[in-house]
Amino acid sequence: MIEDKNQQRTPLSELGEFGLIDHLTRNFKIQHKSTIKGIGDDAAVLNFKNKNVVVTTDMLVEGVHFDLSYVPLKHLGYKAVIANLSDVYAMNAKATQVTVSIAVSNRFPLEAVEELYAGIETAASIYNIDVVGGDTTSSTTGLLISVTAIGEVETGSEVYRSGAKPNDLLVVSGDVGGAYMGLQVLEREKEVFKVNPQNQPDLSLYTYIIERQLKPEARKDVVKLLEDLEVRPTAMIDISDGLSSEIIHLCKNSDVGCDLYEGKIPLDPQVISTCEEFNIDSTTVALNGGEDYELLFTISQDDYPKIKANPHLTVIGHMKEAKEGLHLVTRANTRIPIKAQGWKNFN
Amino acid sequence: MIEDKNQQRTPLSELGEFGLIDHLTRNFKIQHKSTIKGIGDDAAVLNFKNKNVVVTTDMLVEGVHFDLSYVPLKHLGYKAVIANLSDVYAMNAKATQVTVSIAVSNRFPLEAVEELYAGIETAASIYNIDVVGGDTTSSTTGLLISVTAIGEVETGSEVYRSGAKPNDLLVVSGDVGGAYMGLQVLEREKEVFKVNPQNQPDLSLYTYIIERQLKPEARKDVVKLLEDLEVRPTAMIDISDGLSSEIIHLCKNSDVGCDLYEGKIPLDPQVISTCEEFNIDSTTVALNGGEDYELLFTISQDDYPKIKANPHLTVIGHMKEAKEGLHLVTRANTRIPIKAQGWKNFN
Repeated sequence: MIEDKNQQRTPLSELGEFGLIDHLTRNFKIQHKSTIKGIGDDAAVLNFKNKNVVVTTDMLVEGVHFDLSYVPLKHLGYKAVIANLSDVYAMNAKATQVTVSIAVSNRFPLEAVEELYAGIETAASIYNIDVVGGDTTSSTTGLLISVTAIGEVETGSEVYRSGAKPNDLLVVSGDVGGAYMGLQVLEREKEVFKVNPQNQPDLSLYTYIIERQLKPEARKDVVKLLEDLEVRPTAMIDISDGLSSEIIHLCKNSDVGCDLYEGKIPLDPQVISTCEEFNIDSTTVALNGGEDYELLFTISQDDYPKIKANPHLTVIGHMKEAKEGLHLVTRANTRIPIKAQGWKNFN
Repeated sequence: MIEDKNQQRTPLSELGEFGLIDHLTRNFKIQHKSTIKGIGDDAAVLNFKNKNVVVTTDMLVEGVHFDLSYVPLKHLGYKAVIANLSDVYAMNAKATQVTVSIAVSNRFPLEAVEELYAGIETAASIYNIDVVGGDTTSSTTGLLISVTAIGEVETGSEVYRSGAKPNDLLVVSGDVGGAYMGLQVLEREKEVFKVNPQNQPDLSLYTYIIERQLKPEARKDVVKLLEDLEVRPTAMIDISDGLSSEIIHLCKNSDVGCDLYEGKIPLDPQVISTCEEFNIDSTTVALNGGEDYELLFTISQDDYPKIKANPHLTVIGHMKEAKEGLHLVTRANTRIPIKAQGWKNFN
């Protein structure tokens, strides 16, 4: 698996807390007009004119959300930011700032924390956001990253989970299930590595799904695309916990039901072939896999012509009256109730 | 010490993540006009008109920042919020919202997490802030709390660390050193308890300093007071890392020097008597103790008449040209350079 080739090991205690923050954030640039003061005071100072501000926060814990035996620290820093930006985009907002706090045990040298921050900086640069604050502390065991993301949206243009209406179309961006299958491949290779550390795995068949797991992207482009297409979603949510769980949230918050068509769910060919290899049902993976960071939203049927030819967007179902319930319509045209299953199918 | 008398133990797994958040936040009320949408979507939605927004974040880690053998969970939740509000007030801003994320191992039952959230709710209610988001996740060991606090301030009224000028007066609110001495007492009683668990400690001599440690308050009142007195600090910082460390930050950011008068540092009589009992120099404690959550600020000499009679505020020194350096002027009138010592004095 991924080996630590970095031979330099500077103990974190050499810098102390203030030295560490200064050191890690020295290259961070302020890009947004809304950032008046970033890192370096008791708090950051921002101004959003009269726009609405969205705020979301998310935590990643070693041993729960990631396994450092196959997650490079730089990718982890990147993903921690992406997971939060995805929530900002799911409000139809533009991400503008993040704060990043880490708790790190002394088993990590400075160089490891620098790698983590390099990933954070890369995400900030690519997604054009300012890192405006954070906290660095020691932990008794392991690594923990807590990110808070801030965004702005014209007042009234924010999209909640609660606006879907019966007959609205259910649309998903990109494809789903990849991050979960990438994780399966990485877990398998970790077991192989334990048995035979000399074995260099050939992962070329799995590049897409491994990237979906290790270096996901957030759909900033979809928010822009919808704006350009003049499509205003009636409800929106990001898919971090799996399609079925997010559909349930959307329906519950909007007080509607839904028909989801199994045959319409967008799957990458690598997801299909890897599911076959692992003998897992690809629909189950798509419904329960999680970590895809795609956007799931509903639109009025009137907007269908605007999106139908778009390769980034797939209509996967439509909303119904709440009393009709939530169903998966299978390829064989049977109707199965959608339930919050989380990971149960895989146990 | 504090015993867990709560016999009910509901495993967290019974609720699942979404159930847990819903359960913990069900009583949280939205009080601010600036909160458009709190918990329950991908992100909170806020609007601050054209005011400036301040954002700060802070993490508390079990075994590093607190010891649950003598810190009640309700107090911990309260303190985690207070530590962040203090940073908002140090910007001369009004605290309006917080997000709270926790990572918790399965050794904690639901009832323990409820206690923690009861403390968070109490702080939110007393300080009139909305809890608008958060994340609840499992950890492999221990408890970690990450809070992000948000506040608002009229554009241009925020006070940075960087505005102090030579001849400005250095002022501190309340008194210092109490939180550190409270910790010393609690640590001692923990050792006594280990030897003789039947021994019920008499802590009546230490009520003030123990409260400073376990249930500190943030100086919302001082921000209001300064506004009422029409005193605009030229620079301000909160004292969470000890007086000397914060004076150094203030001087460094403002490019000034400083004379701090040992005889002027406000100490509670309990701090003095407990220092005598522990045979620790009270000035050392005041300079390096930390966790007092008081405000340290500078004002123009012209504003002195407005604050001089106020029991909440003490002038402890004055600013000088940077080249003159930072000094403690002792009671014997000797001048000792102020250095960042952190906790070294106590080792």
